[in-house]
Amino acid sequence: MQETRQIKIAIVGCGVVGSSLIQQLHEKHDRILDEYGFSIRISHVLVRNRDTQRDVPDKSILYSSSDQLGEFSDIVTTNSADIINSDANIVVEVAGGIHDAYDIIKAALASSHSVVTANKELLALKGNELYALAGSNRVDLLFEAAVAGAIPIVRPIRESLAVEHINSVRGILNGTTNFILTQMTRNGMSYEAALAEATALGYAEADPTADVEGYDAAAKIAIISLLATGANALQSDVQTRGISGVTVKDIATATELGYVIKLIAVVQERNTHEVIIRVDPTFVPITHPLSTVHDGFNAVTISGERSGELTFIGRGAGGDPTAAAALGDVVDACINVDRGRSGAIVGFEFDRTIADPGEWESEFYIDSLVEDQPGVLAQIAGVAEHHGISIRSLSQQPGKGANVPVRLLLLTHETRERSMLQAAEELNGLSCVQRVGPIYPVLS
Amino acid sequence: MQETRQIKIAIVGCGVVGSSLIQQLHEKHDRILDEYGFSIRISHVLVRNRDTQRDVPDKSILYSSSDQLGEFSDIVTTNSADIINSDANIVVEVAGGIHDAYDIIKAALASSHSVVTANKELLALKGNELYALAGSNRVDLLFEAAVAGAIPIVRPIRESLAVEHINSVRGILNGTTNFILTQMTRNGMSYEAALAEATALGYAEADPTADVEGYDAAAKIAIISLLATGANALQSDVQTRGISGVTVKDIATATELGYVIKLIAVVQERNTHEVIIRVDPTFVPITHPLSTVHDGFNAVTISGERSGELTFIGRGAGGDPTAAAALGDVVDACINVDRGRSGAIVGFEFDRTIADPGEWESEFYIDSLVEDQPGVLAQIAGVAEHHGISIRSLSQQPGKGANVPVRLLLLTHETRERSMLQAAEELNGLSCVQRVGPIYPVLS
Repeated sequence: MQETRQIKIAIVGCGVVGSSLIQQLHEKHDRILDEYGFSIRISHVLVRNRDTQRDVPDKSILYSSSDQLGEFSDIVTTNSADIINSDANIVVEVAGGIHDAYDIIKAALASSHSVVTANKELLALKGNELYALAGSNRVDLLFEAAVAGAIPIVRPIRESLAVEHINSVRGILNGTTNFILTQMTRNGMSYEAALAEATALGYAEADPTADVEGYDAAAKIAIISLLATGANALQSDVQTRGISGVTVKDIATATELGYVIKLIAVVQERNTHEVIIRVDPTFVPITHPLSTVHDGFNAVTISGERSGELTFIGRGAGGDPTAAAALGDVVDACINVDRGRSGAIVGFEFDRTIADPGEWESEFYIDSLVEDQPGVLAQIAGVAEHHGISIRSLSQQPGKGANVPVRLLLLTHETRERSMLQAAEELNGLSCVQRVGPIYPVLS
Repeated sequence: MQETRQIKIAIVGCGVVGSSLIQQLHEKHDRILDEYGFSIRISHVLVRNRDTQRDVPDKSILYSSSDQLGEFSDIVTTNSADIINSDANIVVEVAGGIHDAYDIIKAALASSHSVVTANKELLALKGNELYALAGSNRVDLLFEAAVAGAIPIVRPIRESLAVEHINSVRGILNGTTNFILTQMTRNGMSYEAALAEATALGYAEADPTADVEGYDAAAKIAIISLLATGANALQSDVQTRGISGVTVKDIATATELGYVIKLIAVVQERNTHEVIIRVDPTFVPITHPLSTVHDGFNAVTISGERSGELTFIGRGAGGDPTAAAALGDVVDACINVDRGRSGAIVGFEFDRTIADPGEWESEFYIDSLVEDQPGVLAQIAGVAEHHGISIRSLSQQPGKGANVPVRLLLLTHETRERSMLQAAEELNGLSCVQRVGPIYPVLS
């Protein structure tokens, strides 16, 4: 009979994700043993405060310190050195935050622990350094849970598409903003009211800035950029526009034209050595799969040269889905420990740089207010032509009488954003134009 | 300097998928070498007719027989024994068909070649035997390309979700029927006209039976069943209804009610030891991601206990996407050969059986024609109640005068299909009912 191998894991953080992970490890222990022949034991759980009440199973089967089964309370520690110096095979970081997590993960990798993390902020800031450290220590650094929650996205990109040429990745990567935009679209709520509801329901944090201004989505697309395009982007490299300026009127107009407004993060190759990376509220056609991604769901569309468009939709946040994604990584890391190999990290090539965001080519929507008089359309068309912008469609609200300005809505063909903004500035200078904007990119 | 390892592959079949695979291997050769340190060489290509013109690169870099680089024409053979007896590490079957493919794959596995296949019919018929043979010979049997074309679905189920409890998998697995239904929905075309268009555009084969009657989707959901639920289903186990009975009127009514009709394949757990497995034209709410899957696209929604609903959308067929999926498997198999391990097959547990399809619980839509007279609704409600069916909504077309029957549309809450069919039979016997049906399940 084969001996049961024990693999020890140390967990950093025991909040909503950590507790769910412990619960899932508990429930799946026997199935994992059955399937893979090893038993996963939790040797340490690092917390800030020992005395916090936690919803974890207090059964002995899961916990082990020095090979003796123990109770949950036996393995809790507030000292990170206990983890770094432990004989745990794998360190699982689900605490979040930057500084402590960085110190622990760096020390863990340096002392040849494999690491599983759900920490997108940290990876978007220090990923390059940490991947290299994992590589040189020949251990795994896995992070499926850091991007788009439960959606298996890291693995498909890194493995199934390992030899596919990826042209772009576009995604809805932030559940809070998607919830707010869904409320505004479905129920005609104002941005402020929808944000208040998101806060009341726990979708938004007390300070919602990172979500609503797009920084969270920017961190995630930066991680995806590295995986999908070989451009080592940091969050600060991402041209970012949030949703706080989106109005109910914008959304209503989008609906009339056959679009919904979604906060879309994109990384897209510009040429062999440059990528565009951005986050923008975007007009998404209702025929595109991303338009049906509602509430707290996340989604990613990968465009591959040979495979065409692949879209993955799923829960982007929440303790259970995030912990389920981390658990998949934990099992992978365990398999590698069990087989004495590090298999999941393939070489990243940091061979591309971030292009000037103004070089981005996209279709655009422009809302404007113009005088209701002959010759106005010709002037506007002239400005567009001057900047090389081809107009796809134009609609003008019915006139309300002389001297009452009318709303003019334009959709362009693909054009460079810089040209778009220059044209908008020139339009603003025309005496027949009262207002130009808002302007949104249109997903094609 | 590290020596370049060569891994040899033999390809069975050189039609549209095989040619694209050779083309992609050619294009990606250097990238794979760069990334993984091995060179993939094609040692044999098995064809029916040596003289067929083929769109393959006739450059020497890709091809190798007895370690000498050669031309494409040097490696073509019509004799399968050349492949079985060769020193190829991996046999890639992209020929399709049952009998020859079965013989070759069986012989290849038995002589310890790893196998990559895109052959869903064969796996749906003989998968169990072939998986066991691969396991006992410690080689890989990979088949990402057999299910849903380029969508990475096998891997996410087998790896990312390895320790997740999957409640159901529902999918649009046949591009031909999805193209036909899309044409009928968008353009109001009849089934016959849409089928003719699908045939003209090459979406449908000369004999479209396997597609339109749902057998192709049934083969794919049978393979998914094994992966996702541990029920070893063959195609013949799948309760299957095709789309040839779907009318433009059904589709128009679905649209009015907020649904689209899609051919949905489902495998769903009924209890710890039984699964339901079916293919049905189904009312899909326009808010569900599967409703936006148009034309030849495929999609799969996996419902996991912890991860929630995950939907994957992508191209389901075509030479390039299918070959791209096969190429991913080829690279995986090469990595395993290179590292001297078989890593991709984890144990399947065949621990569930297929439930009586009448036990399926779903919401339903029932179209019927009834007399326009007092008391009819009470009689119908009485029959539904008698069979334990709870009515979610009911709409009656406006009366057109005495003695003119009216259309009555019912949507039910979740109910057992058997009860549904018994109730329909009882309704058909009522003197006030002129017709019951069509009936469609409704995706909830």
